[in-house]
Amino acid sequence: MGFINRVITNTLPLVPKGVIRHFSRKYIAGEALEDAAREMESLKLAGFMATLDVLGEDVTRAEETERAVDEYLAALQLIAKRGLPANISIKPTQLGLKVDLDLCHKNFSRLCEEAQKHQNFVRLDMEDSSCTSETLDLYFRLRETFGDRVGVVIQAYLRRTHLDLDRLIDAKANVRLCKGIYIEPPALAFRDGSIVNRSYTHLLERLLRGGCYVGIATHDDKLVYEAEHLIRQLSLEPDQYEFQMLLGVQRQLRDVILSNGHRLRVYIPYGRDWYAYSTRRLKENPTLVSHILKAMFRKDE
Amino acid sequence: MGFINRVITNTLPLVPKGVIRHFSRKYIAGEALEDAAREMESLKLAGFMATLDVLGEDVTRAEETERAVDEYLAALQLIAKRGLPANISIKPTQLGLKVDLDLCHKNFSRLCEEAQKHQNFVRLDMEDSSCTSETLDLYFRLRETFGDRVGVVIQAYLRRTHLDLDRLIDAKANVRLCKGIYIEPPALAFRDGSIVNRSYTHLLERLLRGGCYVGIATHDDKLVYEAEHLIRQLSLEPDQYEFQMLLGVQRQLRDVILSNGHRLRVYIPYGRDWYAYSTRRLKENPTLVSHILKAMFRKDE
Repeated sequence: MGFINRVITNTLPLVPKGVIRHFSRKYIAGEALEDAAREMESLKLAGFMATLDVLGEDVTRAEETERAVDEYLAALQLIAKRGLPANISIKPTQLGLKVDLDLCHKNFSRLCEEAQKHQNFVRLDMEDSSCTSETLDLYFRLRETFGDRVGVVIQAYLRRTHLDLDRLIDAKANVRLCKGIYIEPPALAFRDGSIVNRSYTHLLERLLRGGCYVGIATHDDKLVYEAEHLIRQLSLEPDQYEFQMLLGVQRQLRDVILSNGHRLRVYIPYGRDWYAYSTRRLKENPTLVSHILKAMFRKDE
Repeated sequence: MGFINRVITNTLPLVPKGVIRHFSRKYIAGEALEDAAREMESLKLAGFMATLDVLGEDVTRAEETERAVDEYLAALQLIAKRGLPANISIKPTQLGLKVDLDLCHKNFSRLCEEAQKHQNFVRLDMEDSSCTSETLDLYFRLRETFGDRVGVVIQAYLRRTHLDLDRLIDAKANVRLCKGIYIEPPALAFRDGSIVNRSYTHLLERLLRGGCYVGIATHDDKLVYEAEHLIRQLSLEPDQYEFQMLLGVQRQLRDVILSNGHRLRVYIPYGRDWYAYSTRRLKENPTLVSHILKAMFRKDE
């Protein structure tokens, strides 16, 4: 995997943006909120819940965070107006985590207030390991005011996560558990897929036994199996957890989970800043990248 | 792996000793006790403990065991004099296991007496399966006199090990648990890596639950994960076990383990008889052997 990852990391910048956009279409609802709304409506009809992600991250100027807040406010209002089973997920760096922590907290507070008005919910996404401590601190700070209207994400590939779990369980936090997708140094993150899966299963068991509401975010059939096993073992009701999957990924597994009586929330990215999200998703999926490279060569013929 | 192992086993005897020595430098402290002392000092500064192994094995004459005893006596005295956090590990065939069991017991007794004088510790290494029963018997015999000043090694790849565990746990033995590195017939040892790993994890759990002090000897990230999980689950204190790794192997993982608050002992081989140890280590590492072969071809050009 190390080698393939290097090839992909070195190759992706050479791929024309138009090609990446073409292959990303499946994973992104569109550029406008209305595109995301259409996606949510059709998912609702099929029995799924949703969470909206306005694409964008690593903001470096305070003014840019303003625009992101406005877009998320519009999303919360649309969700409320149309009565959609959806909430929002936000990358803290998009609201200024790396610019000014107090500004970031203020931005999140505005969105949490709006969510509170509509009995809705705001999730702080988790980004690379340079953000982990600040994001968790921000979550606990927001929690003091907004309680269960706010949630956070932890990543099974990080070695530190089992330590972070203690205070999350103490607080009965609403936690999304994912494997983690950023490229991290081996001192911080497990690289071996089977260790990440063991870690995911152990963390999930601790969270569920600890009485936390968990967003079980995975596309891995093996982890879905382990999760269903734990849910049965602990006799949980379907409203004590939810499965979560990204738009456009593993649709068949998505349907199976729903038909097994679980709730499933689809993560819907939309907006103009689709490039960073798309390349990260592509790096996760070497098969897709090889399709892209083949498509490029065909174009050149 | 079977094929690669065969290639390597057949190729290594053709590799000039100078080449093997070059590639083994990383894994062996040097020829003299003073080389090992330097290694121990720098490991101590970095926060690691050590165990010394005077290279040599399969001794066929009684006089040769005398020389090995003298070298180990010198090692114990140097460790005591310099206040190093180190003990010694000895291959029983080096002290005459295959020559004369009573001689071997007498040799070990001399070293254990010296160790006792300095509140130190002697570990009987485990060799191939032709030595297992005699080594365990020897250990229990020495234990009658020297108690916890003496320890032994068990190998997870041997099918018999889970049976040997009963009396080791009864005695609350100090046990190093490793996978096993010798080439053994399938009737005696598991060949499949995932079975060896399951066996390792199960044996480790039994030992820790049984209250044994375990030297968790592994370079496998997966087993380190399982060990850390067990340690947390059983709420063990860092002085109830130790991790162990060979000199020159997986340094990054070594640092991670230390920074996670565990103790780690590095196994330091030194001495003139470096060939058998080096070829065994090389057989374990096919990538390294392919580097060696490439280096040889370059030399021939």
